[in-house]
Amino acid sequence: MKNLLLIGGNGALGKAVVNAFKATGAWRISNIDVTHNDDVDENYLIDGNSSIGPQVRTLREEHLETYDSIICTAGGWAGGSIKDEEGLESFDIMHKVCTMSALMTGHIASHHLAPSGLLVFTGAKVAFTEPAPGMIGYHVAKTATHAIAQNMATLDDLHDDNVVLTILPETLDTPGNREAMPDADYSTWADCDQVASLLKMWANEENVPKNGSFVALEVSEGSVCTKFL
Amino acid sequence: MKNLLLIGGNGALGKAVVNAFKATGAWRISNIDVTHNDDVDENYLIDGNSSIGPQVRTLREEHLETYDSIICTAGGWAGGSIKDEEGLESFDIMHKVCTMSALMTGHIASHHLAPSGLLVFTGAKVAFTEPAPGMIGYHVAKTATHAIAQNMATLDDLHDDNVVLTILPETLDTPGNREAMPDADYSTWADCDQVASLLKMWANEENVPKNGSFVALEVSEGSVCTKFL
Repeated sequence: MKNLLLIGGNGALGKAVVNAFKATGAWRISNIDVTHNDDVDENYLIDGNSSIGPQVRTLREEHLETYDSIICTAGGWAGGSIKDEEGLESFDIMHKVCTMSALMTGHIASHHLAPSGLLVFTGAKVAFTEPAPGMIGYHVAKTATHAIAQNMATLDDLHDDNVVLTILPETLDTPGNREAMPDADYSTWADCDQVASLLKMWANEENVPKNGSFVALEVSEGSVCTKFL
Repeated sequence: MKNLLLIGGNGALGKAVVNAFKATGAWRISNIDVTHNDDVDENYLIDGNSSIGPQVRTLREEHLETYDSIICTAGGWAGGSIKDEEGLESFDIMHKVCTMSALMTGHIASHHLAPSGLLVFTGAKVAFTEPAPGMIGYHVAKTATHAIAQNMATLDDLHDDNVVLTILPETLDTPGNREAMPDADYSTWADCDQVASLLKMWANEENVPKNGSFVALEVSEGSVCTKFL
């Protein structure tokens, strides 16, 4: 059995990853999240409103092992301008769910990722390619996530043969996004199961992009295809 | 008299800016910082350990006016790897002193910057040009600062004729940096008074770079020169 550590494994993308990896019968899955995913082998709950450092130290000392793949699917989205009265608070939420999740993932990977293992962050294409003042908290938090990934890809704090990838979705087809955008054309959104299939392929050391790749996920002909930025 | 709002006006660069602008006799200076600067006209103290949102709302309602220039010189530096036991805590400090200062600056500017006024952020050349896993908290926080500046430069939340600039120092010649790096060659460091002279020139609408410029500050022949990245 190989070991997968998911961060955010009870979100929409996280659940799809659990299903895809479980179906192989070859992966044991641990999940760090704020809520349980009943389909994984181990859940480690954290409190998003308390300081992350001490919680991660306890997890590392008492539970965490060595993982063949570590994948962060935690995240969230919020719109809003820097001018909004509650803009600073909204930014704090994006900082916690996106940036701090990625930072925690990087920290754990620096201690618990196996040699030749895969580390994946979830970024955002928009933050990679253009400003987005109408969703500034999300844009800044995902830009910070990309910086964390870029620093991890130097491999100074990992094994030399680790591979660090960052997926850059536009819109993922999740229940939350459908609820938020009921009139959108869902056919242009990336299906979570299809994204999970790509992640599973890479975790199985097949068709793996080079370390440090930023992988835009584009939808074409009903399939999610990768474009390297 | 013209109005200048400084964020971080009691730091080394902030003090140099106060001296440069005060010497003209043409500027009234307000300072938002965690400590007083006795040479400015108004100090507004904030508590860096409490939530910023409510403090900024109170400041805006009770004190803030319209400013011809708003300059953020707040910031700090910390080394450290993502692997460090205290790495997540160290990141939190950089997030507060760098990113949250920049975000607060942008939010205030969106409400209080005069038409044709100047908005300046303090970034970092290293975060603009290359990974820096040995100072990851600083790198990520300054990358987030750059994203805030980039979003503000769209002018969606400012007046159309505002100018947003981001200075990108390598090492500023400050007492703190001299203490931290006693064996360095100080002649390669940017003198804060010289940097303040550039900021004063731009605030006086002279030789102003285009909106959205990222301005690397390089030292040559005893002078700080600008290079646009």
